[in-house]
Amino acid sequence: MILGNYVHGGDIYKKRVTLDFSANVNPFGTPEPVKAAIRAAAEEVDRYPDPYCLRLRERLGALHDVSTDDILCGNGAAELIFSFISALKPKTALLPVPSFAEYETALRSVGVEPTFYPLRRENGFALSEDILHAITERTDVLMLCSPNNPTGRSIEPALLLRVLDRCRETGTWLFLDECFQDLTDEDRAFSLIGHMREYDRVLILRAFTKTYGMAGVRLGYAISKNRGLLFKMSETVQPWNVSTVAQYAGLAALDCPDRAKQARALFAEEKPYLMRMLTALGIEVYPGDANYLLLSGVPELYEALLERGILVRDCSNYRGLLKGDVRIAVRRHAENAALIAAISEVLHG
Amino acid sequence: MILGNYVHGGDIYKKRVTLDFSANVNPFGTPEPVKAAIRAAAEEVDRYPDPYCLRLRERLGALHDVSTDDILCGNGAAELIFSFISALKPKTALLPVPSFAEYETALRSVGVEPTFYPLRRENGFALSEDILHAITERTDVLMLCSPNNPTGRSIEPALLLRVLDRCRETGTWLFLDECFQDLTDEDRAFSLIGHMREYDRVLILRAFTKTYGMAGVRLGYAISKNRGLLFKMSETVQPWNVSTVAQYAGLAALDCPDRAKQARALFAEEKPYLMRMLTALGIEVYPGDANYLLLSGVPELYEALLERGILVRDCSNYRGLLKGDVRIAVRRHAENAALIAAISEVLHG
Repeated sequence: MILGNYVHGGDIYKKRVTLDFSANVNPFGTPEPVKAAIRAAAEEVDRYPDPYCLRLRERLGALHDVSTDDILCGNGAAELIFSFISALKPKTALLPVPSFAEYETALRSVGVEPTFYPLRRENGFALSEDILHAITERTDVLMLCSPNNPTGRSIEPALLLRVLDRCRETGTWLFLDECFQDLTDEDRAFSLIGHMREYDRVLILRAFTKTYGMAGVRLGYAISKNRGLLFKMSETVQPWNVSTVAQYAGLAALDCPDRAKQARALFAEEKPYLMRMLTALGIEVYPGDANYLLLSGVPELYEALLERGILVRDCSNYRGLLKGDVRIAVRRHAENAALIAAISEVLHG
Repeated sequence: MILGNYVHGGDIYKKRVTLDFSANVNPFGTPEPVKAAIRAAAEEVDRYPDPYCLRLRERLGALHDVSTDDILCGNGAAELIFSFISALKPKTALLPVPSFAEYETALRSVGVEPTFYPLRRENGFALSEDILHAITERTDVLMLCSPNNPTGRSIEPALLLRVLDRCRETGTWLFLDECFQDLTDEDRAFSLIGHMREYDRVLILRAFTKTYGMAGVRLGYAISKNRGLLFKMSETVQPWNVSTVAQYAGLAALDCPDRAKQARALFAEEKPYLMRMLTALGIEVYPGDANYLLLSGVPELYEALLERGILVRDCSNYRGLLKGDVRIAVRRHAENAALIAAISEVLHG
């Protein structure tokens, strides 16, 4: 929990919100089998959770074709960002911005002032080849996110593999957040999991949160061939950080692979719809591969929509973004249409 | 989760166990309203949890007669041990032993080799006045647990208040784990919460885990008048570390205050029964104030009981304890009688 200001989306607790476009979760919500698993877990919570998360890791290992021992589960993917940084204790870090705020928070919690690598607006915030020159022998860790949050841009596969090569040359750790891969357009999705054998200083982050509408349960995992680091990460947390409820829900979610497919099929219809309508309204939409879109051009859009009970993600507190940059989740058609109608009203009504 | 060896009780996942005396949870299990709250939460988990845990902290503040802002919730009390140490970054620590292993693990995770203060077996592992001399200006933090785990001994109120005074003299932080207070004999329970105003370098740890049979949900909280430290602690973790399920379950648990009373009434019957029967069997039982008892004297007791499907806590891996030191939770009469019968069989049959 936090005591200061909240800098993320999804803060529906302090605001009067009827439509939430600020959290990037699967628009079909929690699958019924996951809800059933949570209800069933209620009967078992008087016991401590399995500290090894064994059944879950076995399933995840099989899913990704890696060993059970290459997987570390966490209390949401966000916890694993902190565990990774606590365990690695880097002295320096290279961080493209804008990106997810918790990378910087985790780095600062161990006293690291990251070197920021600005993603260029005129380039649609895509990672470009320049990054290869920014990675040097003095770069302890590079923290990437693909598709990136909040821009929605994936890293081109060819470039990502060159980044991996460059990190190997310089001995740099590559942290790659793939939390949105499952909800990414099929022709744009590209995971580094199949390339981890080439270099053992790679850690890949994955989440159940977004794919299976489980943000309130908290379950994520890290994959790495570097068992020494995974072991150190496990020592930075208590043995029972992954609740019984989360382990049960995760196992049930893995039986629902169609949930992501269903969402991607929806996005294939709704993203072009949103881009067309928003562009027609004079709003700039950055090309995004994931289940959310970054918009810009209307400075008071966040406030105006909130007055109408619609919460979007005000991105002005991201490094490199400005007032009027907002992120919207892609949701089901009726909700997206309601958003478009509200924006139209803001602009013209 | 962990990748190495598990050093705690409750490991029912890798062993064939029909009766678990190794985890110190309320023997009446999870209250029905808590289970109902978990089931209800299943409908809301597609949203992120409230990062402020506001409703829960308001209730806890009212319960303990402290401000909402004096409370920080965590993913189980165990997480807060790590947050506290990460935020405080002590250089030195004084740690009576035996005590809960995660204190030392958390200290080592920030590079601190604690100074151990041995609790004496011949003294029933009670904390004695000597501790006052061990606290010096060079002691950054003293980590206490009352009743202590695994010994069950409470710190005498008069001594605890003198420790508080001594810490104030030396500027030492006092960390006091009160996770078992709610399940402690009424005439022995003594909380420092009412004395926190006297010194602002005090942090008190509390859990829902034990009192309400919620070990699989993960919910604990810290209370301190030092808001600067609570703020720093909150910055060592992600914003969503306390799941929606845990927040709902916690609110429901606070409506079940009779659950602890019911358990304490049981312990008032069952602890004398267990002590009488065990003593008659020639087993040494240390006087304990909490919902568990430390036994010693039969080196192979743990293994012999496990063969019979009964799991107790082998305490030989605690600093200062030996093979044959085992901890048993106090459970309901039929289970306690089954344990006595099994021990009798081990010894005589």
